[in-house]
Amino acid sequence: MVKLLIRVSWVQIPSGPLFMIKREFRILGIDDSYRRGDKETLIIGTILRGGQLLDGIITLKAKVDGDDATENLITAIKKSRHYGQIRCIMLNGIAVGGFNIIDINQLSQKTKFPVIVVIRKMPDFRKIEKALGKIGQSEKMKLIKKAGKVYKAGKIYFQISGISKNKAEEIIKLAATHSLIPEPIRLSHLIASGIVLGENKPRA
Amino acid sequence: MVKLLIRVSWVQIPSGPLFMIKREFRILGIDDSYRRGDKETLIIGTILRGGQLLDGIITLKAKVDGDDATENLITAIKKSRHYGQIRCIMLNGIAVGGFNIIDINQLSQKTKFPVIVVIRKMPDFRKIEKALGKIGQSEKMKLIKKAGKVYKAGKIYFQISGISKNKAEEIIKLAATHSLIPEPIRLSHLIASGIVLGENKPRA
Repeated sequence: MVKLLIRVSWVQIPSGPLFMIKREFRILGIDDSYRRGDKETLIIGTILRGGQLLDGIITLKAKVDGDDATENLITAIKKSRHYGQIRCIMLNGIAVGGFNIIDINQLSQKTKFPVIVVIRKMPDFRKIEKALGKIGQSEKMKLIKKAGKVYKAGKIYFQISGISKNKAEEIIKLAATHSLIPEPIRLSHLIASGIVLGENKPRA
Repeated sequence: MVKLLIRVSWVQIPSGPLFMIKREFRILGIDDSYRRGDKETLIIGTILRGGQLLDGIITLKAKVDGDDATENLITAIKKSRHYGQIRCIMLNGIAVGGFNIIDINQLSQKTKFPVIVVIRKMPDFRKIEKALGKIGQSEKMKLIKKAGKVYKAGKIYFQISGISKNKAEEIIKLAATHSLIPEPIRLSHLIASGIVLGENKPRA
């Protein structure tokens, strides 16, 4: 009876190997606050423990439609005092600040963390290609394609680097503690839009 | 026995009137990001449901050592789309941006919410008076004294407006889900310092 009640609220369980992984597993979730007209975008990273507890945040900037997001992210993550604790990076889409595309393979290799890109809707690559053409950055399509296959997990989609499809799906499920969207992404979105707009937008 | 266990993990319990109140109870926690040398300070408010789930954030600014914090807070809270859901306001100390003192009675009356000031250490009023004298703002001591008696709850202290001591203590306990500091205060602190410093400071 006692055990049963304790299982319902796994955050409180004091032992067990599966629980230990879950409880201490720290995910860095990344989102930006891009608004049309911005020249630079604020990027927020929240570090969540066990998909629930906010341990810390990092902030950085990147140019709108620029090429510096990957490098700036790597630098910010490596200099963070949470660097040693992070076990996985989650991105809300593959780009920040419009078309500042993140090279997820490079991000994973340089930080040594697996990267999971969470995508709300199946990307329309033809539309993206067209938009990139309009701003004279068609070469970025290569980077987008390099991010690899888009998988489905429940009602959302994802891309991966440095991690298997199955393991990534497991982490997405573990982290989606309060909605369809993994909590580190939901929080980074709330904070990023809150800082820029003075209040958060309704959806991640 | 069951009752005892349920108290430990209340967030997960699916029914019961006490639980319903707690689960949906939204607290707005306020902190600022003041650093020596700033002229203006960023104020962050996080709205947490049941002491756990981040529902939204508000941001605003106030002058360092100014007089606009109370009015700016009232305006930001009343125009927030979360206004209808908030049940209680928590402040991390009575001042933001150095000595921009918040009139907690006015804040409570104008927003119609109870206000709880959470204090980590018993305030040294003589030291505060001296510091106020140095910047030629001794009259602010009145506002500080108007905030009333300092109570103790566990290892922290608190002041109140629009709420009883006992009810406030209950809310503080309810909201301290992950540390001694109520979670809405801990989160606002993490975010405020993270935004300004690029990374959060260790303690609220």
